[in-house]
Amino acid sequence: MTDKTIFFGELIGTTLLVLLGNGVCAAVTLAKSKARDAGWLAITFGWGLAVLAGAYASAPLSGAHLNPAVTLGIAIQTGEWSKVPLYLSAQLIGAFLGAVLCWLTYLGQFRAHNGQVLGVFSTGPEIRNTAQNLITEVIATFVLVFVILATGQTKGLAVSGTGVLVVALLVVGIGLSLGGPTGYAINPVRDLGPRIAHAVLPIPGKGGSDWGYAWIPVLGPLLGGAAAGLVDIAVF
Amino acid sequence: MTDKTIFFGELIGTTLLVLLGNGVCAAVTLAKSKARDAGWLAITFGWGLAVLAGAYASAPLSGAHLNPAVTLGIAIQTGEWSKVPLYLSAQLIGAFLGAVLCWLTYLGQFRAHNGQVLGVFSTGPEIRNTAQNLITEVIATFVLVFVILATGQTKGLAVSGTGVLVVALLVVGIGLSLGGPTGYAINPVRDLGPRIAHAVLPIPGKGGSDWGYAWIPVLGPLLGGAAAGLVDIAVF
Amino acid sequence: MTDKTIFFGELIGTTLLVLLGNGVCAAVTLAKSKARDAGWLAITFGWGLAVLAGAYASAPLSGAHLNPAVTLGIAIQTGEWSKVPLYLSAQLIGAFLGAVLCWLTYLGQFRAHNGQVLGVFSTGPEIRNTAQNLITEVIATFVLVFVILATGQTKGLAVSGTGVLVVALLVVGIGLSLGGPTGYAINPVRDLGPRIAHAVLPIPGKGGSDWGYAWIPVLGPLLGGAAAGLVDIAVF
Amino acid sequence: MTDKTIFFGELIGTTLLVLLGNGVCAAVTLAKSKARDAGWLAITFGWGLAVLAGAYASAPLSGAHLNPAVTLGIAIQTGEWSKVPLYLSAQLIGAFLGAVLCWLTYLGQFRAHNGQVLGVFSTGPEIRNTAQNLITEVIATFVLVFVILATGQTKGLAVSGTGVLVVALLVVGIGLSLGGPTGYAINPVRDLGPRIAHAVLPIPGKGGSDWGYAWIPVLGPLLGGAAAGLVDIAVF
Repeated sequence: MTDKTIFFGELIGTTLLVLLGNGVCAAVTLAKSKARDAGWLAITFGWGLAVLAGAYASAPLSGAHLNPAVTLGIAIQTGEWSKVPLYLSAQLIGAFLGAVLCWLTYLGQFRAHNGQVLGVFSTGPEIRNTAQNLITEVIATFVLVFVILATGQTKGLAVSGTGVLVVALLVVGIGLSLGGPTGYAINPVRDLGPRIAHAVLPIPGKGGSDWGYAWIPVLGPLLGGAAAGLVDIAVF
Repeated sequence: MTDKTIFFGELIGTTLLVLLGNGVCAAVTLAKSKARDAGWLAITFGWGLAVLAGAYASAPLSGAHLNPAVTLGIAIQTGEWSKVPLYLSAQLIGAFLGAVLCWLTYLGQFRAHNGQVLGVFSTGPEIRNTAQNLITEVIATFVLVFVILATGQTKGLAVSGTGVLVVALLVVGIGLSLGGPTGYAINPVRDLGPRIAHAVLPIPGKGGSDWGYAWIPVLGPLLGGAAAGLVDIAVF
Repeated sequence: MTDKTIFFGELIGTTLLVLLGNGVCAAVTLAKSKARDAGWLAITFGWGLAVLAGAYASAPLSGAHLNPAVTLGIAIQTGEWSKVPLYLSAQLIGAFLGAVLCWLTYLGQFRAHNGQVLGVFSTGPEIRNTAQNLITEVIATFVLVFVILATGQTKGLAVSGTGVLVVALLVVGIGLSLGGPTGYAINPVRDLGPRIAHAVLPIPGKGGSDWGYAWIPVLGPLLGGAAAGLVDIAVF
Repeated sequence: MTDKTIFFGELIGTTLLVLLGNGVCAAVTLAKSKARDAGWLAITFGWGLAVLAGAYASAPLSGAHLNPAVTLGIAIQTGEWSKVPLYLSAQLIGAFLGAVLCWLTYLGQFRAHNGQVLGVFSTGPEIRNTAQNLITEVIATFVLVFVILATGQTKGLAVSGTGVLVVALLVVGIGLSLGGPTGYAINPVRDLGPRIAHAVLPIPGKGGSDWGYAWIPVLGPLLGGAAAGLVDIAVF
């Protein structure tokens, strides 16, 4: 993998991840959508299959991190840090572009909705409490990154293509099981990129971008990913 | 693959795709169906698993395109255009036959329903706007074809049989995430073949076939598939 | 595979298939069940995963037919008929035992329900019409058996274990898409075995066993499986 | 596998299993959760994908038993008993830790709920009847362990990574089909570990821990696992 393939792989993969992830939130939330009120199972499968799309597209180019928490965990595990800034910058740009493409896809629905739409773009807690929200994001992201790192150790998994399928279903599972309190960012750019898009896009009645909460879904996942990398070193 | 296996593979595969895809719409929509009102998650899984059925049946015969947007994207990627007319003609005939078989399967339900049934056969937008509807279909089809082309690059995926499973789940994901505005044709023949069937089949109270919209789910997916082929060349 | 492994493989596999398949119908239907009214998606996934359980348990013993329509299709495809009676007898006994085990699992719920329960055991049409019901079962079973026969042709599928997963998901798809009119028997013993169990088990208020319909979910699937075998020979 | 990798593998795997399994029950049950009332399908997929997470993380370390019923079945099948105490102790500690982590993840929701929450932690029957509840758990666990043992015999399954995916989906299927009467413990520590956590954690209004029922989801799964091991020896 060259710098060019890493950059475009992460850029395209994260764009697809957020396009489909924000997309399912738009589909279930906005007025004049065929999927309106399709429910939590639809949202969790939508995000998991968004990972499927992004990861298969980027796996041969960049190894399909798509998430600074994953990149951080792998850097801790392997001790190789030189490519981290390249991964993170492509991921953040991709997450922003994905949110913009989602807005284009649902342009008519955003206009028809004409109400607060931050929930389509970014996460927010059911009960606002800094310590609790951080703990939830740390634990949920630890699960994600630790299992990803462990699958790299499973015989035959990495080369069979099954690994990406497993991670996609793992994200469905994390959403179902640990998403109740905060909406499971578990990925700093998945939350920050769309939040920037929400702030700059011209959407009628869109409401505020809740910047006071924005640091929690960035710091929590990074702490969770780092913890996963350290535990991986300890046990494998 | 010979011309004969390509023709029958695409014919049978697309027949199965539309039989099961139209089938789930009939199951959820029509009167006197056990699946009535089973909801959007049922529809999106039904279409995804319709791809599974069609693709596994046709993979060893024709490579399982089943979609002119996929055939176009592959032709652009590979530069081989000679078989394109063969693929497209088999796909369109298969899509028409699949819709007819769906009608036979649900014959009693169509009679009992006795109302507008175009939604069982073809797509239609929630908000009718040519530019917006085209954009939605272009973006959704780009995702489909780009990931399909990329999986061909993933080590071990093509030979393991997992590739078809991934594409089936990808179609579930695209439906959940990007299907809200237009009902996600993402395949010209999936929309046009059943629309012709709707026009010619004797169904009581069936309503109009909405030919004014029919060109959008043909052109949009073709543009999306072509864009995917071009981006694939640029990044891989 | 010896006669002994074939017999016990089919016996155990079909027992598991019907235990879990009837089980999900009991779970969703009967009083005092935690899954009551879980809906059509639960039923279709339940039956598909019932195939998963039965097929993985029996694959190394008997090749996991579990269905006379599959056995018939394979016999036509391969020309080998000597083991067919062995397969069919084990399948019918297994289907009966599976229904009895389901009754034991839900014994308290059957007592609490105290109403008609044939729908837990066997299929029945929404609209009773011999020709239409037969056509529906023929088409649905053709899809099942044709795709199963085709997966045997897909490179790498049979040896990877993915084949069983595909067939399980295929059964989910057939249920979602083609199950609306008749409840998709698509397997003679899956309907006949539990119907015999329903007739002989002591269940309060169980209602009639509807023997007048019983031949349709036997004949229809056999015709569909035979057609799949013949088409497979013609195109592969 | 050394004693150290077995202990940490089972510890971490069972922690993940119960964290996500209890998590989905918390998500669907507690006040102020985004997933509230997401339904039985969400619960069954949540538990199945909890197995996916725990099993992939622990497969290369300990072989991913995560369940005394599985450990017992394998010991009977293989005749190797020396590591059984090591497996069981790690599993019980992990199950307790998983429940504690779930409580931390949903701390705010537990406070807001302020009502009986035993159902988040452990199973309980819809109809309380010792013999019936035992039978249900024996049958459901037999299905789980017998299919797991059989997949070890399926050519190519163990080495492809697909085996874990199959077991995860099998658990979804057992939940859908056999979970209605008792809530399917099918794993002694999955029930006992969280029940201990429920007894000791400071949760407002939590209600009793129902110790009178606690032995059934321990004994039933052990009997079912032992039966599966014995039948496996007989037929393979």
